[in-house]
Amino acid sequence: MAETSSDAVVAALTESLGDLVITDPALRAQKAQDRSYHPGEPPLAVVRPSSTEEVAAAVRICSLHNTPVVPRGSGTGLEGGSTTSAQSICLDLSPMDQVIEIAADDMYAKVQAGVMKSSLNTALQPHGLMFPVGPGVDASVGGMTSTSASGTTAVSYGTLKENVIGLTAVLADGTVVTTGGITKKSSAGYDLTHLLVGAEGTLGVITEVTVKVHPIPETAQVSIWSLPTLAAATELVVAALRSSLRIARVELLDELTIGALADHNGMTFPVAPTLMVEFEGNDADVAAQFAQFSALAGTYAATLADQATDPAESARIWQARHDALPASLSLIPGSTPMISDVCVPISRLAEAVLAAKQDVDEAGLIAPIVGHVGDGNFHVAYVLPPEDVETFEKAKAINQQVVARALEAGGTCTGEHGIGSGKVTSMAEEHASAIPAMLAIKQALDPQNIMNPGKVVPDTGL
Amino acid sequence: MAETSSDAVVAALTESLGDLVITDPALRAQKAQDRSYHPGEPPLAVVRPSSTEEVAAAVRICSLHNTPVVPRGSGTGLEGGSTTSAQSICLDLSPMDQVIEIAADDMYAKVQAGVMKSSLNTALQPHGLMFPVGPGVDASVGGMTSTSASGTTAVSYGTLKENVIGLTAVLADGTVVTTGGITKKSSAGYDLTHLLVGAEGTLGVITEVTVKVHPIPETAQVSIWSLPTLAAATELVVAALRSSLRIARVELLDELTIGALADHNGMTFPVAPTLMVEFEGNDADVAAQFAQFSALAGTYAATLADQATDPAESARIWQARHDALPASLSLIPGSTPMISDVCVPISRLAEAVLAAKQDVDEAGLIAPIVGHVGDGNFHVAYVLPPEDVETFEKAKAINQQVVARALEAGGTCTGEHGIGSGKVTSMAEEHASAIPAMLAIKQALDPQNIMNPGKVVPDTGL
Repeated sequence: MAETSSDAVVAALTESLGDLVITDPALRAQKAQDRSYHPGEPPLAVVRPSSTEEVAAAVRICSLHNTPVVPRGSGTGLEGGSTTSAQSICLDLSPMDQVIEIAADDMYAKVQAGVMKSSLNTALQPHGLMFPVGPGVDASVGGMTSTSASGTTAVSYGTLKENVIGLTAVLADGTVVTTGGITKKSSAGYDLTHLLVGAEGTLGVITEVTVKVHPIPETAQVSIWSLPTLAAATELVVAALRSSLRIARVELLDELTIGALADHNGMTFPVAPTLMVEFEGNDADVAAQFAQFSALAGTYAATLADQATDPAESARIWQARHDALPASLSLIPGSTPMISDVCVPISRLAEAVLAAKQDVDEAGLIAPIVGHVGDGNFHVAYVLPPEDVETFEKAKAINQQVVARALEAGGTCTGEHGIGSGKVTSMAEEHASAIPAMLAIKQALDPQNIMNPGKVVPDTGL
Repeated sequence: MAETSSDAVVAALTESLGDLVITDPALRAQKAQDRSYHPGEPPLAVVRPSSTEEVAAAVRICSLHNTPVVPRGSGTGLEGGSTTSAQSICLDLSPMDQVIEIAADDMYAKVQAGVMKSSLNTALQPHGLMFPVGPGVDASVGGMTSTSASGTTAVSYGTLKENVIGLTAVLADGTVVTTGGITKKSSAGYDLTHLLVGAEGTLGVITEVTVKVHPIPETAQVSIWSLPTLAAATELVVAALRSSLRIARVELLDELTIGALADHNGMTFPVAPTLMVEFEGNDADVAAQFAQFSALAGTYAATLADQATDPAESARIWQARHDALPASLSLIPGSTPMISDVCVPISRLAEAVLAAKQDVDEAGLIAPIVGHVGDGNFHVAYVLPPEDVETFEKAKAINQQVVARALEAGGTCTGEHGIGSGKVTSMAEEHASAIPAMLAIKQALDPQNIMNPGKVVPDTGL
């Protein structure tokens, strides 16, 4: 029987990388998609490299065979960024789990792409340092970097964009580039680091990441505030951001989320638009900030529902926020999520959330809303019952409306989840004038269009 | 007489843009170079647009005539980024001086590229807001963006990279792109904003910039500390950065700078390695931080030389720091500066500064040293007497040694001044593995190589 070209690429990979190349059907099926509703097809093979050189070898072979390469971190993506096609190779970077360097005095850490955020923090903790940026779910540093992720701490520590200072990446022809460096700043040359952050593997496979790390604060205090209206909640946040307060985190949870958390986590707070607010610093500083915020909160008729400085109790409260998605999914057994991730100027947040809520209610959907309100970023989590095409289509339509409304308000179709395959059309609409330049860059760096094709930018049709 | 091709481009520009096109020899000579020692040749003409559309028209015509376009802000560059060649057109963006929008609640401002930092701050002040990022000298927002500038506040507010959220730019074919947006974060598509920040007009002409703005702090306190040694100074700064203190600014001045300031500004401090430290916040917060820092400073044998919270007195002290360069130049009448701008990991700063000092002393040069020590960025200001080739060559050699040593220490050849024409070779050495990708991007976006050719990246020889 003649060897097909798919056989050929797998054979060549196996010859080069041996048992790092896995064709077991169960593993291929498992690595075909992320946590979202976007369907994938099992790839030709899963390659599990543990070094940049092995990634380079794999990409070089895929380039020779004109075979798509889909890099994958921990697989927690929500927009299909790591879904594979039947003719592609999944590059599973999770074996790249080494913390390469912790430079405590210079406050950076260099890790392989597959290192999980939790592992990095475990390694940093003895140095009194932390890497606070990222989603509630544990995720790989490479994956977070590739999607330009952020999470609850972006309001104070920034996103991955502000925290990645250097990268190692494998380009489409298998060459290895190092970008940026280990210094806190540089004006030297084109900022390839930021070009790769958020490119979701479409311009190169990120294999190593250097991130800024931060001192662990002496004290952190979380407080829970119930607000009379959503508008009052966003107005309070704007006032706080414009004051001398330094807000470490501020999260919005809607009534439905509060209800879901009561069922799922036993966290019972008044069913109202709710803010979770955190201050950091030393004891006196945190107490002073909390007092200042409390006075401000009073003027917006906010009432204090709970507060904690004890680390275990704080962690329990924050876990509730991070469990918002599973709690929401538990509202319908067996459900999967579709999630809006728009970001708008904060002054437009209340109207955007209220309009989304109205859409959801009118369509009879179940879709709790949470928001990184200090950034103007909010999520509508459409809970999709299994095999329910009608609800799926309704959710998709509302998701599109939410995005359209965000773009009208000067916002973006994705604050932190990335484009993947799910938001390509929205991205092209949002950045219409810049698409030709994006495609020119894609073509320049990946002329065969083998790097995670079909993701982020509209397909060039090569 | 036959029309030369230079005549043709000027004629076409004039036909399109009328008296925005100026061929007056005095103006052309004046716009031929920046504040550095890098020589320029008077361009064919100076075009002074006041809108993006006029920039686009000019670039389109230059593209048709294959004529280099050199954008220029306030001309305060230090690496020849805006020097013109005899066959080029200078695009003087200083007439683009309109503040387009101040969104106080959403804390961003959108300005034309020629708006000066001081003008932006004047416009922001009534809103209780400020744009704190940038060099000591007043400069245009577009110019600062193009060089990825920073200055004394980078340690707390970041550089232009962390503060620019969106751009309008004219690409090499005259098309207009808008990148980024007005939200605090986005994961939507390739980060063209950061690709253009620091590209010094080699990939496109930045015509509008959207920046984050920040609340004016209630109180700011500057204090001056004399240290026994340079190493003690950097160790104190590392300890402070790793503590719960939030340092707003921390600057290092060497003995020679302190001496020059005494002569030039009448600021008399003990002649010793000196730190200027600033804390911001409300009164109680600033007092608490100052007390905490004072205790820490004592353990490094630092002594307090001065301090101020009064805004006028603070401004006077900070003006001294911003006058470090003119004060240094006043050491030799009629001199011009050459300035090293390396950035190293902070743990390597003391050795890097000491080695530079030794080089300078051995060569018998006059070259005060100041540093944005919280970032590991320092400047050696070689004071060049007029028409003194020997000193110039000595300074150039030492500058190269300072850069080489910084690269060996994992540093960068430029923390904030950019590459211009002066650091192209150093940049290519620093980012050797990334040069092919940078050139591929340059070629993709500027196939004729008309956008500020010869700057930032090695010439493609097109």
